[in-house]
Amino acid sequence: MNSIGTALRLTIFGESHGELVGAILDGLPPGMKIDMDELNREIEMRKPAPLIGTARHEADEVKIASGVKDGILTGTPVLFIMENRDVRSASYGDMQFIPRPGHADYTAFVKYRGQSDFRGGGQFSGRLTAPIVAAGAVARQYLSSKGIRVAAHVVSIGTVVDGTEYTFDTIENKRFGNEIRCIDGAAAAGMRDAILGARSDGDSLGGTIRCVADGVPAGLGEPFFDTVEGEISRFMFAIPAVKGIEFGSGFRGSAARGSVNNDQFVISRDGKGVVTATNNSGGINGGITNGMPLVLRVAVKPTSSISSKQRSVDLRTMQETDLVVRGRHDPCIVPRAVIVVEAALCTVLADLYLRSGLK
Amino acid sequence: MNSIGTALRLTIFGESHGELVGAILDGLPPGMKIDMDELNREIEMRKPAPLIGTARHEADEVKIASGVKDGILTGTPVLFIMENRDVRSASYGDMQFIPRPGHADYTAFVKYRGQSDFRGGGQFSGRLTAPIVAAGAVARQYLSSKGIRVAAHVVSIGTVVDGTEYTFDTIENKRFGNEIRCIDGAAAAGMRDAILGARSDGDSLGGTIRCVADGVPAGLGEPFFDTVEGEISRFMFAIPAVKGIEFGSGFRGSAARGSVNNDQFVISRDGKGVVTATNNSGGINGGITNGMPLVLRVAVKPTSSISSKQRSVDLRTMQETDLVVRGRHDPCIVPRAVIVVEAALCTVLADLYLRSGLK
Amino acid sequence: MNSIGTALRLTIFGESHGELVGAILDGLPPGMKIDMDELNREIEMRKPAPLIGTARHEADEVKIASGVKDGILTGTPVLFIMENRDVRSASYGDMQFIPRPGHADYTAFVKYRGQSDFRGGGQFSGRLTAPIVAAGAVARQYLSSKGIRVAAHVVSIGTVVDGTEYTFDTIENKRFGNEIRCIDGAAAAGMRDAILGARSDGDSLGGTIRCVADGVPAGLGEPFFDTVEGEISRFMFAIPAVKGIEFGSGFRGSAARGSVNNDQFVISRDGKGVVTATNNSGGINGGITNGMPLVLRVAVKPTSSISSKQRSVDLRTMQETDLVVRGRHDPCIVPRAVIVVEAALCTVLADLYLRSGLK
Amino acid sequence: MNSIGTALRLTIFGESHGELVGAILDGLPPGMKIDMDELNREIEMRKPAPLIGTARHEADEVKIASGVKDGILTGTPVLFIMENRDVRSASYGDMQFIPRPGHADYTAFVKYRGQSDFRGGGQFSGRLTAPIVAAGAVARQYLSSKGIRVAAHVVSIGTVVDGTEYTFDTIENKRFGNEIRCIDGAAAAGMRDAILGARSDGDSLGGTIRCVADGVPAGLGEPFFDTVEGEISRFMFAIPAVKGIEFGSGFRGSAARGSVNNDQFVISRDGKGVVTATNNSGGINGGITNGMPLVLRVAVKPTSSISSKQRSVDLRTMQETDLVVRGRHDPCIVPRAVIVVEAALCTVLADLYLRSGLK
Repeated sequence: MNSIGTALRLTIFGESHGELVGAILDGLPPGMKIDMDELNREIEMRKPAPLIGTARHEADEVKIASGVKDGILTGTPVLFIMENRDVRSASYGDMQFIPRPGHADYTAFVKYRGQSDFRGGGQFSGRLTAPIVAAGAVARQYLSSKGIRVAAHVVSIGTVVDGTEYTFDTIENKRFGNEIRCIDGAAAAGMRDAILGARSDGDSLGGTIRCVADGVPAGLGEPFFDTVEGEISRFMFAIPAVKGIEFGSGFRGSAARGSVNNDQFVISRDGKGVVTATNNSGGINGGITNGMPLVLRVAVKPTSSISSKQRSVDLRTMQETDLVVRGRHDPCIVPRAVIVVEAALCTVLADLYLRSGLK
Repeated sequence: MNSIGTALRLTIFGESHGELVGAILDGLPPGMKIDMDELNREIEMRKPAPLIGTARHEADEVKIASGVKDGILTGTPVLFIMENRDVRSASYGDMQFIPRPGHADYTAFVKYRGQSDFRGGGQFSGRLTAPIVAAGAVARQYLSSKGIRVAAHVVSIGTVVDGTEYTFDTIENKRFGNEIRCIDGAAAAGMRDAILGARSDGDSLGGTIRCVADGVPAGLGEPFFDTVEGEISRFMFAIPAVKGIEFGSGFRGSAARGSVNNDQFVISRDGKGVVTATNNSGGINGGITNGMPLVLRVAVKPTSSISSKQRSVDLRTMQETDLVVRGRHDPCIVPRAVIVVEAALCTVLADLYLRSGLK
Repeated sequence: MNSIGTALRLTIFGESHGELVGAILDGLPPGMKIDMDELNREIEMRKPAPLIGTARHEADEVKIASGVKDGILTGTPVLFIMENRDVRSASYGDMQFIPRPGHADYTAFVKYRGQSDFRGGGQFSGRLTAPIVAAGAVARQYLSSKGIRVAAHVVSIGTVVDGTEYTFDTIENKRFGNEIRCIDGAAAAGMRDAILGARSDGDSLGGTIRCVADGVPAGLGEPFFDTVEGEISRFMFAIPAVKGIEFGSGFRGSAARGSVNNDQFVISRDGKGVVTATNNSGGINGGITNGMPLVLRVAVKPTSSISSKQRSVDLRTMQETDLVVRGRHDPCIVPRAVIVVEAALCTVLADLYLRSGLK
Repeated sequence: MNSIGTALRLTIFGESHGELVGAILDGLPPGMKIDMDELNREIEMRKPAPLIGTARHEADEVKIASGVKDGILTGTPVLFIMENRDVRSASYGDMQFIPRPGHADYTAFVKYRGQSDFRGGGQFSGRLTAPIVAAGAVARQYLSSKGIRVAAHVVSIGTVVDGTEYTFDTIENKRFGNEIRCIDGAAAAGMRDAILGARSDGDSLGGTIRCVADGVPAGLGEPFFDTVEGEISRFMFAIPAVKGIEFGSGFRGSAARGSVNNDQFVISRDGKGVVTATNNSGGINGGITNGMPLVLRVAVKPTSSISSKQRSVDLRTMQETDLVVRGRHDPCIVPRAVIVVEAALCTVLADLYLRSGLK
């Protein structure tokens, strides 16, 4: 099913090469004023940058067609509609029987036999992340009213890494300072070169994104099956190309000793509360937020669409064949995925907040 | 809520230091014969090994009290009950107001104010993984009837690594060959030394576990919100101490180029089907299984309970204080977690299989 | 939340006096051809008849904006959009602080304090049943491909009753023969007179509707919490003004003896199967369909909006006051509700069918 | 699935003729003291009365095996276990292939072919209502802490009716004053005679039960798919033998005019709030509670098990045959169902209350 969430439910619909894509966000309380300018700024952040992104250009205008009156949430489901404009379906003609490596063409063929061509170029498309960003922008405005902020940045693209663990304020202020969404300028330049290099080779790159939430109150989430980690992961893996996730020290922490990885409890600087001296837990103990910043990192695989020749199988003849993927593609979607990761985290946190019963 | 799953729903209950722990598994079709010996063997695999595990010893006898008649599933909910025997609650007296670093004591205190002591030593406990293993054993027997097998092994403990990507058969046959659950004998010996070293220092270690499912048919899972990766992750993060997960090439793959990371489609050796030449996707494209082995890796943090002195805060006085955690603990739970990871994957795959409508 | 269903999920959105209303239907398998003419005929059946219905006239054009390609379901969520045209919001000005008896104005005021005016005239409106009919028409076409048909008819309006238990074929063929949707012509005439009488008195009428499903296979539904009765009821009570439901002999049967109410099992006329000699169970034993026609009856209360003077309370001053409800209203919605009841049953049955795993 | 509820989830398990039956209640906040004496009193109310009930006698001892410490809820799932003692399985030998009219034997045979005998005498049994009563008793104690009380009484058995609309206090105080659970003594006597008459004829009777909740705050429930009526109905139809439900004036109200059926809003006697002058809505407007008593009535069909001869089909030979149902049965379960209906309403209301976010 194309829905996620318990107290705040997001449903997405539409196809990459159909008439429109969109989303419904159900569960936000009435009364909040929507800042459409801010929403549109976030939509803008998802667009491909010149040279390093795809040549497909979508206007990406969002229309909120229900759930808002005079700019204010009414409590009814919020409907986001984004028309598709720059569609060139002809580009995809052959693929329905010759699955592209790394794509969902083959699994869609098996699962939806006879209709797979449409879905492969349709429902699985990264185009569906556009309404996710729109809905996430509204979820973010709800979180903001509770003092919760979310920001992400590119940590690595290919083998170029900006490993600094920046403070939340730095990330929030600088993450959109360049088209790579990488805080460190030198690293960003290296990443840009790497992307252009891959592009000129007809190849692609992946990378990693770090996302932080600040101001998250302690007490969100539950032990075992409704953990904060589990709920966030389920949404992050909805983002096409995400293949890994870790919280706090994650995989690195699994190599450390407990005396190093444990976060000791101390009194906060203002003397008023309990904080941890380090944050290897990524702000989550026992599946529940502890009041420290929530920190996660996701792995984004290199774009599956590459223009160099690959091997595949013609499913009609069951013969192996060469395949050259045509169409307009991003050599690296990692910079564009930054705002999608933020939107996902905003949506999950708003759901967890609403579930928690906090006011 | 303490439930997970859609077509197959697992509910757990009980407390570490209460009378019992247990589980309900609802949704399996009637008619399957349960192999209790096999189930008990899997329970046995979760027990602590001498020296490297906790000194707490639970008989861990599982009783199936409903849902089975004459050894055969009736289609009604299967109830697993495991009594707690070796309970020494006195060991935990102080902790209710002085939260242990790395544990859920503090978050439980915030979330369930006034009852947190019980929950911290109760619902959050790894003891709840015992009924998860019992239920997972039944889910595994269901999968087995569909030709699906699951096996996991220890890849690393601390900084000692066995990085070989073993075939499924090797993992299945050799994973319980030593108490470390590491396939390579030399690496296992190094891991054992590392654990004993940490123990003698009053410290602990974490590690990573690789889990593989063989025989998974193509077509399980859905795009976006019900992806195989997302459904599995939600369960894996229910295992206490898991802080990261990746599928196929995961984080490593995010540093590669698309031409390397894409899995080219080829005809299988027997000429009958489509397979991929490599398996960097971990058997999943677009959130849906592609018929290749499903491969994942989880990061397990070092055990939070260590006997050396740590800093914490007395929540009554809001003063920082030293804390020495008493009680019986595992210096490293990674070996014991292998069967829990398998049980989690078995339960999720059985749910996905039942949802898929495949017979 | 504005969603219902497990394997087939319906979500509705929009407001009576906003820009549009609509629905998403998620879960239908790909490949079915949609008959838009038939869908539009069903939408037509929901429109008010001259004289006996409201003076508000909606074009009620349905647009399927995603999930269908070349008239064929693609397997992705089906989006229905219906624009609102004949909106006169000024009519509702006063009601936000002086709740109309029988309406949701007061409960909306309490639940959504500060936004209730909008919701009372918005989300609670019978206008939302238009997309329910559209989605139900598609669900019906799916059921039809499985040999399942659904039809309903008016049994009573006010005190005028057509108590005949018509066969399914009669209902299906004759239910739209007059504007009352009552099979018996004489009774229909009496009902029409009763409605016109109530209208001229500034008053309103309710009634009862009987709905039958033919061709339902045995085995849908589950014991206890997912009974066919319970699943259907949950949807029927979503139809504004429904206040009661019974299956088979229902309330009448509760006064009979078991020897009369039990349905004896016999061999069917064609000698091939098991049927029951009577159908007091309404086709459901133990929450599961038994292969006989599914029969239910719902009670629809008289329209809450009446033009005669009523008493209410001004919620600003907390003083009792007279209230005269303006606006355009149906003196009796029962005839229009017939197609809505059918749509609800179609949607639930399609969900139950998809859940059952039958092909 | 054998679960119901969103914020408060009830799961039942066990079989009538297995080792035990039981329930899990998950979602209650920690800290509430459980009154076991009161819980046991309610269990007692479900037992058959001499002469008018079955001869099967269960001790019905309830053990709470987890979720409670020192008599206080811990916030973890509450496990109720009730052992079966007086089981005589031999009585049911023939029925697996000759379905009893009115029972789920045939539908279970179709749905769970090969295992149906067990389920027919197992999972579908009214015995499962025992743990529902136990869980409902705990839900009731939670409601009580919020000022909400629930009580039901028998309105009719067969054709003997006590139609008085008693106040809540009268129902609460007098409902268990006789074995019939009918408030009016003369009507109770008539009902008793009717039951004994049916019994001596080898026959059975049904009836109706009215259930009222007092102190329900305005604002529970939601429009459309999560209406109070719909949520309650889903649970009520889980009670074996319930075939109809109505709220407030229900079916009777559907024959009235709007001017009569509408509940006018007036100021309450103490001058502090808004109430309605009548309560034909049963305390629910637009699917949401309005602060008036919640009133519903359910239809209970006559007990399917009767000792007089009936017709059925031998499913092995597909020949019609006579059937005489042996075993111990209630000639009328309506009196025993009173506490089950209360338990169902308590559980649903506690769920709705917890969902509402009210403190």
